Amino acid sequence: MPPHPRRRSATAVASYERGRTRDQRLKGHSVTASVNIGPISGFPEWLPEVRILEQTLIDRIRRAYELFGFAPIETPAAERLEVLTSKGGMERQMYSLGRPAEDGADAVTSLGLHFDLTVPLARYVASHAEELVFPFRRYQIQKVWRGERAQRGRFREFYQCDVDIVGDGSLAVAYDAEMPCVINSAFGAIGVGEFRVHVSNRKILSGLFGAFGIEGEQVAEALRLVDKYGMSDRPRLAAALQEHGCEPKLVDRVLDVLPAGTVEEAMGLLEGFDAAREGATELRDVLDRAVQLGMPAERLVADFSIARGLDYYTGTVYETFVAGNQDWGSVCSGGRYDDLTLALSGRAYPGVGISIGLTRLLYLLIQSRTLQPGARTPAVVLVTMQDAERYFDDYLALGHRLRGSGIPTEVYMQPDALRDQITYAVRKGFPLALIAGSREFDDSAVTLRDLRERSQETVRISDLIPSVTERVGPPGTFLKRARHG
Amino acid sequence: MPPHPRRRSATAVASYERGRTRDQRLKGHSVTASVNIGPISGFPEWLPEVRILEQTLIDRIRRAYELFGFAPIETPAAERLEVLTSKGGMERQMYSLGRPAEDGADAVTSLGLHFDLTVPLARYVASHAEELVFPFRRYQIQKVWRGERAQRGRFREFYQCDVDIVGDGSLAVAYDAEMPCVINSAFGAIGVGEFRVHVSNRKILSGLFGAFGIEGEQVAEALRLVDKYGMSDRPRLAAALQEHGCEPKLVDRVLDVLPAGTVEEAMGLLEGFDAAREGATELRDVLDRAVQLGMPAERLVADFSIARGLDYYTGTVYETFVAGNQDWGSVCSGGRYDDLTLALSGRAYPGVGISIGLTRLLYLLIQSRTLQPGARTPAVVLVTMQDAERYFDDYLALGHRLRGSGIPTEVYMQPDALRDQITYAVRKGFPLALIAGSREFDDSAVTLRDLRERSQETVRISDLIPSVTERVGPPGTFLKRARHG
Repeated sequence: MPPHPRRRSATAVASYERGRTRDQRLKGHSVTASVNIGPISGFPEWLPEVRILEQTLIDRIRRAYELFGFAPIETPAAERLEVLTSKGGMERQMYSLGRPAEDGADAVTSLGLHFDLTVPLARYVASHAEELVFPFRRYQIQKVWRGERAQRGRFREFYQCDVDIVGDGSLAVAYDAEMPCVINSAFGAIGVGEFRVHVSNRKILSGLFGAFGIEGEQVAEALRLVDKYGMSDRPRLAAALQEHGCEPKLVDRVLDVLPAGTVEEAMGLLEGFDAAREGATELRDVLDRAVQLGMPAERLVADFSIARGLDYYTGTVYETFVAGNQDWGSVCSGGRYDDLTLALSGRAYPGVGISIGLTRLLYLLIQSRTLQPGARTPAVVLVTMQDAERYFDDYLALGHRLRGSGIPTEVYMQPDALRDQITYAVRKGFPLALIAGSREFDDSAVTLRDLRERSQETVRISDLIPSVTERVGPPGTFLKRARHG
Repeated sequence: MPPHPRRRSATAVASYERGRTRDQRLKGHSVTASVNIGPISGFPEWLPEVRILEQTLIDRIRRAYELFGFAPIETPAAERLEVLTSKGGMERQMYSLGRPAEDGADAVTSLGLHFDLTVPLARYVASHAEELVFPFRRYQIQKVWRGERAQRGRFREFYQCDVDIVGDGSLAVAYDAEMPCVINSAFGAIGVGEFRVHVSNRKILSGLFGAFGIEGEQVAEALRLVDKYGMSDRPRLAAALQEHGCEPKLVDRVLDVLPAGTVEEAMGLLEGFDAAREGATELRDVLDRAVQLGMPAERLVADFSIARGLDYYTGTVYETFVAGNQDWGSVCSGGRYDDLTLALSGRAYPGVGISIGLTRLLYLLIQSRTLQPGARTPAVVLVTMQDAERYFDDYLALGHRLRGSGIPTEVYMQPDALRDQITYAVRKGFPLALIAGSREFDDSAVTLRDLRERSQETVRISDLIPSVTERVGPPGTFLKRARHG
């Protein structure tokens, strides 16, 4: 066991990523085996202390989603290729599945790994329409795979945490108001700090474009330009729109509307454009109702530059920014779509939803030290063995007693020096170690050492449970403990 | 909205499997789209009520694992092919990953999907040895993929729930005693009914074989024969062993030992076979210590016919059977291995672990009606809208108030008749519906309808939270509610 636990923790933040740890490992260690066990680019793998943190975030997001009555589903990692390509655009990032054949060449299957949870949702709704109760409210927290070029903080395998509400034939716009509240509930719970949900409605811009004769796929392309350049590069946006066929009057109008601070201001600028004003009216209702549903008004921003790059959005669109970290881009996005399943079922199931890209967010939160991984164990007590020869069964019984009261406990069963057992407890982040030898057992007592405060106390075994819970909180709280910085 | 919620629930158990639901759907429904959205053989997909149940089982297993101080990890779904094939035997069931190329042919990658969580654990330990604290205790709950022939209850994509304890160079046998306790804790929590953990030690049989000159790969093959025929077909086992080169005296001895009821009885039969007796001594210690750690003795069975088919086990082996459902086979198995990582790192990290094949278990528990899916929503209150025109904002505010107290709540926002809203609540399995119009709001009150008891009561809004929790339990218990039959 290396003797310097503290030295290790200093490099811990830098080494959570498998790439780094592997590099570090190679420096100090000769590798004899011929199998490549190094990191796979873009496939993150966390040490236990980071996975504990990730699991905590997932639990909290899930709890927030369930608080709003979203039911969990999962879909297979694999979908038919024809399903995955039915919406278009992502084929080049897709992984297909093969089966190794006898001769070494792979036999292809008709399957690929899903690259998001939206296409699988559309297929799920189309497949199970008769068994589902509409409006169908589901959340889905699963890994997705994209074979894009891996970069720092961009992964090929990552978690998405989606919620959607899907109607059968129609879905009231009022449901769009729930999404900011769900985001607020989830982000409030995971400790990202302050954040803002930016909301717009695609009908505002598409209505404007339509009034000037821009239609169909041309509108989608124009919205992609707005999404690409947005507010940050207005001259380039203007040039791109003009090049795209927008007349100067239209470009001016778009550039006027984008920076509008309120729906009322936008409404004034949209005088005479009925379709665009309809979008603004929808947006106003969504914002008002979100506040009625509990969304803090100061976290809600009408932002007419939000356009979203994806074709299928038809109304409300959302993006979420962490205050002070706008350079991260949107960490939770989504919108309203009216015809996602049409290609799959010939029937419209309109819906609205949002998605948190959790793996990237976790990575950014750790990199920025907003969150700091803590313990390497979910247990709160390590039962050490001071005199295993005589008291082995007593140590085991103590472990059983603690677990019986819901206290996550590990019993150390290697015949190592007590000093090494304590070092082990400190390195793993146990708050408490239980120590007992004949001195304690003769008095029906044990010593509880608080490893955080470097203090200890001898307590009677009959008082063990209250003594532990007094120090670490009542049973049930251990597993919920946040390990936030 | 279909008018007969009750008729649907009668066929629910039969229709959880995607294959069935698709068949049923096709019967009553014309499919217009050309994309195949039918089930993919072997890739199960559950309706929300079954996923809620699956999630409940996973939560409880996880809690049981954490109670014993196992830390969570996940590994990427993909590993290098050379890692996946390093232990041998599973190549033919493996899925490889491809990247669709421009010309339509797939480009192969050097990656495949993991088919268990044991090979990834070995690779994880070898990759991160310097960052881990040993003994390393991890649990891992993830899907695995096997391209085997799909049958009823055998899946190509399924959840495994693994725990392992891994030492650096050595690991005390005492840790083997923890596994039955972990199984007991997990199975006790998920409501499978009564069960037995059968334990043996591979050294008993391998010691016997060794004493008669059977060695190396021949021993592994002989153990596979014992695993295959076990106690159920002793004449075939005898014939197979003889054919395998075991002399009659050895075969007799094996057939004598297999049915032994206690370690003492086996010890008597193993007089003179020191290596075999050493295994029996280990087994006795493991059983004794498991009881000290809290394992109920009546659920612990010394069973010398347990051999496990996998090569890498070297000592204690476990299988778990559900009482009355022995035909399911073992639902949780594992064992001690001494050299799992040797091929990957050139260094021994011995370990012991178990694995629950959760998807199959869930399937069997539902088929046997041991577990019955319940609600289709995690929410406990549906706020209906009797007079949306006048009170829309009040309904939203009620939803916010309930959620603010931790009560999972859905607000119905479609402009449908109240009758339809109540039908929706019943079909989704809400215990409570909140109903209010001018009669109630004028008195600052709402009506709480209990949809289980078909009773209702008007309560003051100031008393709403206690009135709800009185009927469904205090906040925090909703999400833990079991939906067991």
